[in-house]
Amino acid sequence: MKSRSFAAAARDLAGVGRRFYARGWVLGTSGNFSTVMAARPLRLAITASSVHKGQLRSTDILQVDERGAGVGQRSAKPSAETLLHVEIVKRRGAGAVLHTHSVWSTILSDAPRPGISIAGYEMLKGLSGVGSHEHEEWIPIVDNAQDMQALARTVGTTLDRAPAAHAFLLRRHGLYTWGATLADAERHVEILEFLFETIGRGAATRFPLTEEA
Amino acid sequence: MKSRSFAAAARDLAGVGRRFYARGWVLGTSGNFSTVMAARPLRLAITASSVHKGQLRSTDILQVDERGAGVGQRSAKPSAETLLHVEIVKRRGAGAVLHTHSVWSTILSDAPRPGISIAGYEMLKGLSGVGSHEHEEWIPIVDNAQDMQALARTVGTTLDRAPAAHAFLLRRHGLYTWGATLADAERHVEILEFLFETIGRGAATRFPLTEEA
Amino acid sequence: MKSRSFAAAARDLAGVGRRFYARGWVLGTSGNFSTVMAARPLRLAITASSVHKGQLRSTDILQVDERGAGVGQRSAKPSAETLLHVEIVKRRGAGAVLHTHSVWSTILSDAPRPGISIAGYEMLKGLSGVGSHEHEEWIPIVDNAQDMQALARTVGTTLDRAPAAHAFLLRRHGLYTWGATLADAERHVEILEFLFETIGRGAATRFPLTEEA
Amino acid sequence: MKSRSFAAAARDLAGVGRRFYARGWVLGTSGNFSTVMAARPLRLAITASSVHKGQLRSTDILQVDERGAGVGQRSAKPSAETLLHVEIVKRRGAGAVLHTHSVWSTILSDAPRPGISIAGYEMLKGLSGVGSHEHEEWIPIVDNAQDMQALARTVGTTLDRAPAAHAFLLRRHGLYTWGATLADAERHVEILEFLFETIGRGAATRFPLTEEA
Repeated sequence: MKSRSFAAAARDLAGVGRRFYARGWVLGTSGNFSTVMAARPLRLAITASSVHKGQLRSTDILQVDERGAGVGQRSAKPSAETLLHVEIVKRRGAGAVLHTHSVWSTILSDAPRPGISIAGYEMLKGLSGVGSHEHEEWIPIVDNAQDMQALARTVGTTLDRAPAAHAFLLRRHGLYTWGATLADAERHVEILEFLFETIGRGAATRFPLTEEA
Repeated sequence: MKSRSFAAAARDLAGVGRRFYARGWVLGTSGNFSTVMAARPLRLAITASSVHKGQLRSTDILQVDERGAGVGQRSAKPSAETLLHVEIVKRRGAGAVLHTHSVWSTILSDAPRPGISIAGYEMLKGLSGVGSHEHEEWIPIVDNAQDMQALARTVGTTLDRAPAAHAFLLRRHGLYTWGATLADAERHVEILEFLFETIGRGAATRFPLTEEA
Repeated sequence: MKSRSFAAAARDLAGVGRRFYARGWVLGTSGNFSTVMAARPLRLAITASSVHKGQLRSTDILQVDERGAGVGQRSAKPSAETLLHVEIVKRRGAGAVLHTHSVWSTILSDAPRPGISIAGYEMLKGLSGVGSHEHEEWIPIVDNAQDMQALARTVGTTLDRAPAAHAFLLRRHGLYTWGATLADAERHVEILEFLFETIGRGAATRFPLTEEA
Repeated sequence: MKSRSFAAAARDLAGVGRRFYARGWVLGTSGNFSTVMAARPLRLAITASSVHKGQLRSTDILQVDERGAGVGQRSAKPSAETLLHVEIVKRRGAGAVLHTHSVWSTILSDAPRPGISIAGYEMLKGLSGVGSHEHEEWIPIVDNAQDMQALARTVGTTLDRAPAAHAFLLRRHGLYTWGATLADAERHVEILEFLFETIGRGAATRFPLTEEA
C-alpha cells in the first residue's frame, strides 16, 4: 500500500461525511472515519475528535501513527477511538475504517446476546468476498467502555475469534466496519445499515400484511 | 422501437440512479437498470456490475445483446442479472427494466407465500393500463438463486403465469419492474415502493389510533 | 381576489412540487395542486394529469374554469380530480388546494370509521384560525370513487357537514387540504402530515419506552 | 459574552433552519430559534412568529430584550414563546436556545409520567459536560399551555429542580434545548432527536430479531 495524498484522503473522508450526515448516521458530531496513508510505518488520516461530520474540512483530519498518537504540527485532538481504528487496521489489513452511530445499529446493538447473525439476504453479496446470498454473517457485539486501551484489546480478541466478520457493533453505541479501500468500507456501511433496518423493521411487521396478502 | 442515443440513455439511467440512491433504494452498489436501445437485434444499455448507483458515469453503462453478452469494446462486466433484464424485455416487450433493493420490498418479499396481492389503493392507477383503484395487483415472489440461467427460466415461467403483473419480487432480494419507457418504469418503482411501505407500516398500526380517533 | 400572473403561479406550484416530491408525498405522478388566478369568473391554475410533480414545468400547469374545463389552447389534459378542486374553492373560498398521497395519510385514511379526530397537539395551532392546542380537528374520511361528478357532490356535502374542517381524506387515496393562499395550503399539508405520522407511529409505540422511562 | 454581529447571527440561524427543515423537525412554520447577541443588557436574536423555518431571511429575525419585547423598528412579531427562551438564557446562562417539533419528540413527550430518563448510550457523551455513556439524562416533561407568562414560570421552576438537565419537553408540543453556543445547541438537538428516535423505534422492536439472531 503506497502513500496517498493527504489532501485527497481528506477530500474523500469529507465526501463520506456529507453522505452519512445526510442519512442521519453521524449526528451530533458522532462517528469517526480513517483511511490508511502509508503502511510501514503506519500512518492513518483520521477525523479529529468532536467535529461536525457533515462539514469536514481538511483541518478536521489528522495524521496518527501506529499507537494512535498525532503526527505533525496539527493542534486538534485525535478521536478518542483512534486506538480502535489502529487495532482494526492491524488485525484485518484494512485500508479504511468507518464508525457510525445510526438509529438501527444502536437498536440492534442492544440485543441481549453476544452478536447478531444475518443470513439469506442478497445484499450480503456486497460484503467483500461474499459470493452468494446463502451466507451467514456473524456480527459480534462488544460491550461499550470508556477505557480505550482496554476496549482496543477486547476488539482485538473479538476480531481474532470472528475471523470472517466484516464488522462489529459496540453495545448502545454504533457500528465499526472496514474495507480494503474507503469505497469498500463505505459500501459495507451502506449494506450493513440496510440489513439492520430491514431486520429491525421486519421484526415489527406481522404477516399476513393485508387481508388480501 | 428505434435506436436511441447511447449518451442520452446513459444520462437518463444516471438520473434514475441519483434519485433512487437518495431514497435508499440502491445502497451498497445494489440494483441494476436497463433501457432498450434497439429491438432487432436487441441491444440493451445496462448498468455494469458493482458500480455506485448514485454516481453513474457513462463508462458504468454497457451495451449487451439478446443473450446478455457485452457488445463493443467496454471492459466492464455486465451485471450478473443481465439475463433477467433480457427475459423481461422479451416476455413483456418492455422498453426499460429497473431492479431495486429497498427495505420495504425486501421485508415484503419474505412473506411466507408465493406472492403479494395489493388491492383498493388509488395509487394502483399509476400502473400502466390500470384505470381504477378497484384493481387487484398480484406481485409474484420468486425464490432467490445465484444460477442466473435457471433464475431467468423461472422468471420467464412466472411472467407467463401472471400475464397482468407489472412486477415481481425476488425473495430477500428486491423488486423488478418495467415499463414501455424508462419514465414508465421509474413511475412503477415509485408506486410499488409506496404501496409496499404503506402496507408494511400499516401492518404495525393498530386502530383506533388515538383515544379520540 | 385579484388575478395573479400565470407564470408566478406556475413557478410557485413547481416549488411546492419539488418540496413534496422530496418528502415522498407525490410519488409516481400522484397528487395535484391548484391555485386561484381569478375569482369571477373563476380561473384555476392546476397541474395537468399524470405529470411528474418533482419536475413541474410551466407547460404542466393548465387553466380551468368553474366547471373544470380547460381554458385557452393548452393541449394537456386537466387532472381528473379538477372537479374536487373547484368544489373546495367554491365551498370554502380557498385560494389554493393541495392534494397529496403520503404513506401516513393513506394508512390513516383506512381507519374503519367516518373520520379522524386529532386533539391536544400544539401543531394544530398552525391551522388557520386555530389559537390553542386545546382544539379538536375533525378530518372526515370520504370513500374513494372514480366517478368524479358523484365524488365532487359527496365532497361538497361532506364540507357542508364539517364546516370547521381544514381537510378531508379520501379512503386509501390521500389528503385534500386548502388555504387562503398557496403558502397557507402548503403549511396545512405539512402540519397534517406531521400529525398523521405522529399518531400513526405513536400507535405502534408502547409505554414505558425503556426500563428507565 | 460580547455582542455579535446581527447579520452573522441571522445567517447562522437560517443555516440551522434549513438543516432542521430538511429533517422534518420544524414543519409548518413550527419551532423557534434564538441566539444571545449581548448579555448585559440582554439582547436575543430570535425568529419571528409564524415564519417558514426552512427559508429564513434576515427580516425574519428580530431582536428582543430581557422581557421578550421587541427592540428596534422591526414590525414583525416576536415568537409567542420568546419568554421561554429568555427564561432558559437566564437560568442556564445559555448562548443559544433551540425549539423543535419532531415526530419522535412529540410522541415521547406524551409519556404518562413527569419526564423521560435516558441512560447507557454513547451518544449521551455529545451533551456538554457528559464524559461517559454511563450517564443518566433526566428530561422533564412540562404540560403545555397557552399562557406564556405562566408557562415561563413553570419552566423556570422545572429547570431549577433539574439542574443537570440539558433539555425539556413540552407535552404534545416539542423539544427545548440550549447550549453555550449555537453549535452546541444544534448538537444537542441532533443528539436528543437521535435518542428519542432510537428509544421510540426500539420500543416497537421485538427481540430476537430474526430466527438466526
